[in-house]
Amino acid sequence: MILTVTLNTALDITYRVRSLRPHTTHRVSEVTERPGGKGVNVARVLAALGYEVTVTGFVGGSTGRIVQDALTATPGVVDALVPIGGVTRRTIAVVDERTGDTTQLNEPGPAIAPAEWSAFLEAYEDLLAPASAVALCGSLPPGVPVGAYAGLIRTARAAGVPVLLDTSGEPLRRGVAARPDVIKPNADELAELTGSHEPLRATQDARRRGARTVVASLGAEGLLAVTPEGRWHATPPNRTHGNPTGAGDSAVAGLLSGLVERLPWPDRLARAAALSAASVLTPVAGEFDDAVYRELLMRSSDTREGTVAQI
Amino acid sequence: MILTVTLNTALDITYRVRSLRPHTTHRVSEVTERPGGKGVNVARVLAALGYEVTVTGFVGGSTGRIVQDALTATPGVVDALVPIGGVTRRTIAVVDERTGDTTQLNEPGPAIAPAEWSAFLEAYEDLLAPASAVALCGSLPPGVPVGAYAGLIRTARAAGVPVLLDTSGEPLRRGVAARPDVIKPNADELAELTGSHEPLRATQDARRRGARTVVASLGAEGLLAVTPEGRWHATPPNRTHGNPTGAGDSAVAGLLSGLVERLPWPDRLARAAALSAASVLTPVAGEFDDAVYRELLMRSSDTREGTVAQI
Repeated sequence: MILTVTLNTALDITYRVRSLRPHTTHRVSEVTERPGGKGVNVARVLAALGYEVTVTGFVGGSTGRIVQDALTATPGVVDALVPIGGVTRRTIAVVDERTGDTTQLNEPGPAIAPAEWSAFLEAYEDLLAPASAVALCGSLPPGVPVGAYAGLIRTARAAGVPVLLDTSGEPLRRGVAARPDVIKPNADELAELTGSHEPLRATQDARRRGARTVVASLGAEGLLAVTPEGRWHATPPNRTHGNPTGAGDSAVAGLLSGLVERLPWPDRLARAAALSAASVLTPVAGEFDDAVYRELLMRSSDTREGTVAQI
Repeated sequence: MILTVTLNTALDITYRVRSLRPHTTHRVSEVTERPGGKGVNVARVLAALGYEVTVTGFVGGSTGRIVQDALTATPGVVDALVPIGGVTRRTIAVVDERTGDTTQLNEPGPAIAPAEWSAFLEAYEDLLAPASAVALCGSLPPGVPVGAYAGLIRTARAAGVPVLLDTSGEPLRRGVAARPDVIKPNADELAELTGSHEPLRATQDARRRGARTVVASLGAEGLLAVTPEGRWHATPPNRTHGNPTGAGDSAVAGLLSGLVERLPWPDRLARAAALSAASVLTPVAGEFDDAVYRELLMRSSDTREGTVAQI
C-alpha cells in the first residue's frame, strides 16, 4: 500500500456563491464537505486510480468525526489517523459561480501535545512496514517540531521506503536536508527555498540541497523535473482554469503511483501532468475528471500534445 | 421571561484574516465560534443586560451540539430549542484586519420535516404562557411554511403576549398582515415591503399594512419610529463603523427590554440606538461594548447628543 501523512488534516468545506464581493453578505447556494489536507487529497486521488492507500496524521473533535466517517466510506482508503484532544481544522473554499474562481480560507489547526506526537511516531513506524512509498504532505500544526519531516524521512529511509515530501517554508528546508527521494515544490515554494525565481536554476539548486529528485509544479508552465536519470519538462496538455491547490495534490498522486510502478520518468511526468490538468477542472481538491484524465494521457502518448521533453 | 424564536439558528463562526482578497488563499489568524441566528443574538444581548431569556427554534447535528453547549454556558439564557434530524447551519464572518470590514457567508440551513414543525408549534404554545414578550427573528429554513410568522403572531396574541417581528421578504409581508405589535425592518426590508425608498412614507405605509408600531433601522441615519403614540427619530450618538448585522439585533433587544418595562417610546428608542451603536464596535453579532453603551445612554439623556426627537 501507499502511505500518506497529513499532520494538519482538515474538514474541507466548499461554498458556492453567486459572486464573492468583500464586505457584503452572501447566501451560500450549495455546501459540500469532505476530508482534506494535502495527504488526504493525494490518498483520494490514488484510491480513485485503484491503489490501496493508508492515511495517517492527526484527527479530533466534531470536525474530525466527519473526516473519519467520510474516509471510512471511501473505497481503497484505510483510516489510520491518530486521535488528539484538539479539534480538526476547517478550510473553506468559496467558489464564485460567475467566474469559477475560488477564494480559500484555512484555519490554523489544533495544537498537538507531546504525547500525541509520540503516539504518531510509533504509529508511523508500524505503518511503514507494509508501505511501498510514503508521501509527507502539507503544513505542520502547532506543537509539532519544525524539523518533524526530516525525522520522518530518516525513519522511512531506515525502513527502505521511498519518500516524497510536499511542504513549504522551514519544514521544507529542513526536510530537504534529510535527503528525501522526491520533493514537489510549486514556483513560490521553490523560490522561497532557493532564493531563485529562475525555475531551472532553482530546481537544480533544490537538488543540491539534498533532494534526490525535484519536480517543480509551475502551474500553466507545467512540471519541471531534475532527476538522477536526467531532466524533463512536461508541458500541460492544454490550458485549464480552476482550483490550483487540487492540481498539486493530483500531481503528487501521479508521481507516487509512477514511483511504486517503477515507470520511467517521462511516463510518471505525463501521468502527473494529465492528473493535474484533469483535477483543475473540478472545484474540489482530491478529485479529478476521470474521462478528461484518460483522454489527456492518451493524447499525450498519441499526438505529442502535452509532451514530456528531455531538456 | 422574554422569549426569542430563531427558526434558522446557526453556528456563527468568525475568521480574522489580514486582508480578504478574492481568488487568493488566506491563513485564518483567529477562529471564534458562538451560537447565532437573529433571535439567539437578541437573547444574548438581553441576557447581558440582566433579563431572563428563553431561546427556541430548531437545532440539530454536530454544529447544533456546539450551539446548545454554548447556550447552556450563557448565564440568563434558557435553551428550549427543538431537536431536528438535519444539521444546524453555519455562518462565516470574515473580518478584514486591515479595514475592519466584515464579509458574510451564510449557509442555507437544514430542511424542517412536517413532524418537526408540529413539535415546534406545541413547544411554542407552552413557552408563551410564562413570557412577557416574544421576538420572532430571522429567515425561515426550508420546509417551514412561508406564512409561519403570521400563525405564530396570532398564537401570541391569543396568549396575550406582545410580539416583535424582525424578518424580511415574503415572511415579513405575511407576518405584518397578522398585526404584530412591533416590526423592525432595515431600509432594504422596508423598501421591499412597501415599494417606497422614502423612509418616513415607507414606515407609515408598513403601519397601514398591519404593524401596530414600525421601528425602521436606517444605519447611520438612526431609528425612525411610527407608533400609536407618535412619531420619533433617534439620531445615533455618533458615527460608528463595524458589523451592521449585530446592530439590528441589539436594537431589537433594546426595544424588547423597553417594551417589557413599559418605558415611554423616546426611552426605548434611546436605549435601542445606544445598544446598536455599542454593538457596531464589536465584530460579533449578539455582543456589545457595555462601557460604550452606558456612556452613550448617559450622554443621550445629559447633553442631548444622540437625541430622540418627535417628528
